[in-house]
Amino acid sequence: MPQIAKLPEPPYIAVIFTSLRTDGDAGYGEMAEAMVKLAADQPGFLGVESARGADGLGITVSYWASEDDVRRWRDHPEHATAQKLGREEWYSDFSVRIARVERAYGKTV
Amino acid sequence: MPQIAKLPEPPYIAVIFTSLRTDGDAGYGEMAEAMVKLAADQPGFLGVESARGADGLGITVSYWASEDDVRRWRDHPEHATAQKLGREEWYSDFSVRIARVERAYGKTV
Repeated sequence: MPQIAKLPEPPYIAVIFTSLRTDGDAGYGEMAEAMVKLAADQPGFLGVESARGADGLGITVSYWASEDDVRRWRDHPEHATAQKLGREEWYSDFSVRIARVERAYGKTV
Repeated sequence: MPQIAKLPEPPYIAVIFTSLRTDGDAGYGEMAEAMVKLAADQPGFLGVESARGADGLGITVSYWASEDDVRRWRDHPEHATAQKLGREEWYSDFSVRIARVERAYGKTV
């Protein structure tokens, strides 16, 4: 069952990764799954939400305690390898936006 | 063709709306389309990206020039009606996170 990430009170950091996939898998599915697992083990990881529509546009938002945690994850060697493959093989276009979440609310609060 | 939003240089505001849909349409598709069109006509609107996966989790990120623009859109009468229906009918769960984008980069920059 997919879930909305349960996060602490703001402030925290959101990394909004929007992408368009190239055709074919080319190892993408396996790597994407491995990266979500690896991210979840990193210091400062708070949660992740991910969706890709039938039109090929995907949005993954990962949430982190601090900017330093985001930088450490960006520079993690296995993640750096995945980023290189993403740039060269898997994504025809992408955008990364690093944002500070200042307030949040949900259905029940 | 889906597209990555073309945005100005940061800072700007991102509203990250994550949701789980209830079963059935119940007018949702029509309203969702109408709200994207209405949002695009509001002052300070910069762009929007949206994806919903086969598992039902959807992420829509709208981008705005300022917090005031976000508040005006939240309080727009037609949008307020849509929000009420969303809360009562269309979403089994959702989360709204308002964030200040501080830096951004893409495939080609």
